[in-house]
Amino acid sequence: MKSASLFCKSFLVVIIFISSLSFNFLSAQTSKPTDEEVVKQLFDAALKQGKCYGWLDELCNGIGGRLSGSPEAEKAVQWGKKLMEQQGFDRVYLQEVMVPHWVRGEKEKAELIPSLKGKKKQTINISALGGSVCTPKKGIEAEVIEVRNFEELATLGREKIEGKIVFFNRPMEPTHTCTFDAYGGAVNQRGRGAIEAAKYGALAAIVRSMTLAYDEHPHTGAMRYLDTITKVPAAAISTKGAELLSQSLKEDPKLKIRMEMQCQALPDVKSYNVIGEIKGSEFPDEIIVIGGHLDSWDTGQGAHDDGAGIVQSIEALRLFKTLGIRPKRTIRAVLFMNEENGMRGGLKYAEEAKKLNEKHIAAIESDRGGFTPRGFSMGGGDKQVEKVMAWKKLFEKYDMHEFTLEGGGVDIGPLKNQDVLLMELLPDSQRYFDYHHSPSDTFDKVNKRELELGAAALTSMLYLLSEHGL
Amino acid sequence: MKSASLFCKSFLVVIIFISSLSFNFLSAQTSKPTDEEVVKQLFDAALKQGKCYGWLDELCNGIGGRLSGSPEAEKAVQWGKKLMEQQGFDRVYLQEVMVPHWVRGEKEKAELIPSLKGKKKQTINISALGGSVCTPKKGIEAEVIEVRNFEELATLGREKIEGKIVFFNRPMEPTHTCTFDAYGGAVNQRGRGAIEAAKYGALAAIVRSMTLAYDEHPHTGAMRYLDTITKVPAAAISTKGAELLSQSLKEDPKLKIRMEMQCQALPDVKSYNVIGEIKGSEFPDEIIVIGGHLDSWDTGQGAHDDGAGIVQSIEALRLFKTLGIRPKRTIRAVLFMNEENGMRGGLKYAEEAKKLNEKHIAAIESDRGGFTPRGFSMGGGDKQVEKVMAWKKLFEKYDMHEFTLEGGGVDIGPLKNQDVLLMELLPDSQRYFDYHHSPSDTFDKVNKRELELGAAALTSMLYLLSEHGL
Repeated sequence: MKSASLFCKSFLVVIIFISSLSFNFLSAQTSKPTDEEVVKQLFDAALKQGKCYGWLDELCNGIGGRLSGSPEAEKAVQWGKKLMEQQGFDRVYLQEVMVPHWVRGEKEKAELIPSLKGKKKQTINISALGGSVCTPKKGIEAEVIEVRNFEELATLGREKIEGKIVFFNRPMEPTHTCTFDAYGGAVNQRGRGAIEAAKYGALAAIVRSMTLAYDEHPHTGAMRYLDTITKVPAAAISTKGAELLSQSLKEDPKLKIRMEMQCQALPDVKSYNVIGEIKGSEFPDEIIVIGGHLDSWDTGQGAHDDGAGIVQSIEALRLFKTLGIRPKRTIRAVLFMNEENGMRGGLKYAEEAKKLNEKHIAAIESDRGGFTPRGFSMGGGDKQVEKVMAWKKLFEKYDMHEFTLEGGGVDIGPLKNQDVLLMELLPDSQRYFDYHHSPSDTFDKVNKRELELGAAALTSMLYLLSEHGL
Repeated sequence: MKSASLFCKSFLVVIIFISSLSFNFLSAQTSKPTDEEVVKQLFDAALKQGKCYGWLDELCNGIGGRLSGSPEAEKAVQWGKKLMEQQGFDRVYLQEVMVPHWVRGEKEKAELIPSLKGKKKQTINISALGGSVCTPKKGIEAEVIEVRNFEELATLGREKIEGKIVFFNRPMEPTHTCTFDAYGGAVNQRGRGAIEAAKYGALAAIVRSMTLAYDEHPHTGAMRYLDTITKVPAAAISTKGAELLSQSLKEDPKLKIRMEMQCQALPDVKSYNVIGEIKGSEFPDEIIVIGGHLDSWDTGQGAHDDGAGIVQSIEALRLFKTLGIRPKRTIRAVLFMNEENGMRGGLKYAEEAKKLNEKHIAAIESDRGGFTPRGFSMGGGDKQVEKVMAWKKLFEKYDMHEFTLEGGGVDIGPLKNQDVLLMELLPDSQRYFDYHHSPSDTFDKVNKRELELGAAALTSMLYLLSEHGL
């Protein structure tokens, strides 16, 4: 009986032990926070102990504008690497990529030379478009012909255009609620203006700045050439300058512009994408990218474009670490190099991913400025999109309602053929083009809370993707 | 036969004439634009030929801060009246109202006086709260006791507080997505801090600025006294100053503050609400108000608070006129006087409306800054609310999704007992308290498009209310 009693007692102890184990197990199960709770934690932490605003200060005021190939771009690479290392991510590394090295040069000026007697010369601010060839040393001096679009150019023909400077002056259309639609409707003047003008023998192209603001700043940006068409210099003129020029041409059609630019393309240089990673606990081979671009135009500080996306991407991974959230899938912050004038970083990243046979399930880009987040756009298979759409209600609590099907951004675009869901953060777009590619894209134009809300939204989407897969 | 034939012909002509009449009538019927079309017209016009941004420039840079009773407030009255007369509204008039005349005085300063040897005095920026009494001529010099809330004050009691300056230092809570919620959770320190501190024998109250920004500006605002409690001076300190003071008190609890303020309340003066009106074509006796407040604090330019609401209200009526839309009901822009420190204009307007037996069916206020509009809040009967909610889809096209039931604003509040639907425009709230009641509430902080989108949203709501009634 004794041994039986002992057996009974032992049995009871084992039962109690097992019960307590399973109770702990169950309670661990039930205490796992809901998606809604995690999203709230992420927003609270981003707003309360956010780091990204301070980092943006370092990047903008400490380093400044960082065009591909410049010493500042190199500094930004080292800054990004060190910062991510300091956060203790599982892996931080550089991915080599050759980038264009276009430089603006010292001299960049233009003036209006009236044909009417008694009128004075007038300086106008211009900014060479990225990739433009220089003018001859003595500059270009020629009459100006104003057009609104390429059709008008074709109608005028070589007779009216040859030997002149073409002035593209079609404004961005203010009635679009989303300013990116207005940009899309005007930006071909900047991208292809020099080609189209040169077809008819123009000597140069001057393009109205791509902005809805009425300001003094020329807004630069990328432009292209074709090998088969003469390469003529191209510059942006501020919107105020464009109005002045247009008015002056009405009063004095024989007015000339004299312009001088010393910009040039130097040989490509070595640069890097900067990558930080937290390994997934359950599906480490499934990768989710969050990224922005580290390079910026040289005339401002690249604060909204795209310092904001850079610091938000690093902040996303930091929030996982600081809140002790181990992602199920691998999350990777990619600071792409050379979005502005070459896209080499984006292309390189996709090329390497393919080479290494990496499985990317999703990529999110933040390259529309550090403004109040309004939603996400996405592009992918129906099932992927459906899954993300089901999370929309989690974001509506944070006043994000715009879930659209317009695809992802420029840098993650090359991943497209790898069956990956591409997404982009959609912040409020009203102020973006006020600063875009201009000297006024500086740190002080970024609001701390708006930037942090964007970081929180991105991190939340990253969490949902990593937790539930696609 | 001839006459019969003539009859037939005449008959035919009459038939044709009638047909053509009814055709014209029908086509006039079918060509009446849909609500959606009118809303689009209003948004397009506001963004393309908007006037409100230029008007705001005049009000802010031409006149500046305009506290009730000041010469600037009087200038603003005349400016508003003239501007509305120039627009050719059906009726423009002033509504007399007596307002408080509190003045800041010239001297307003404070310094930290360390008790520890070797430490230097330090100037801190303060700004008297509106309505505060002055300090004695020689100033107040006393030790400081820091508290977070009134409960803490009660726990400390008279023993710890008597003869000291109470420093209220509870920050606005950053985790609220809507910053007005954060404001609501902290503003009792400003409104009632002096009363609560004086209950325990404090000599003065210093209150952390009501802002989520970490800045150098004291943000002023209204405060109250009770006749039964000693009136002690009260001032705002900037958030940077509050952090410095708090840190200094940790290192040196015997630290004193010396403060001097010359503010005072002068006798009430005569001022005005400024009112412009377009008569309704079908129901002229049904009135819909749109308004903001013309007065502002003296330390800034009152750009977001509430120059924005003023120019949007006038713009709304102008858009009706310029687009040739005759409202069915009477629409009235009211530029309320004295919202900031007395609400006398709002009270007067409701009093007069009652006296004249005017039938107000709705009132919309814009007093949350000129930022991207996100929706409307409203308060009224179920049927009224239901009707407005049905229009929500018209605004969703312009990315406005927040239709809430939080009632209207301060100035239209007194209309409540007249069975009127009260509404308020809800712009994006992230930046509002960065500028609110501080020297940085200036014209340059307002984005043209954001302001115009708000005007378009307000005008659209005004149109729907005037067209369909409630």
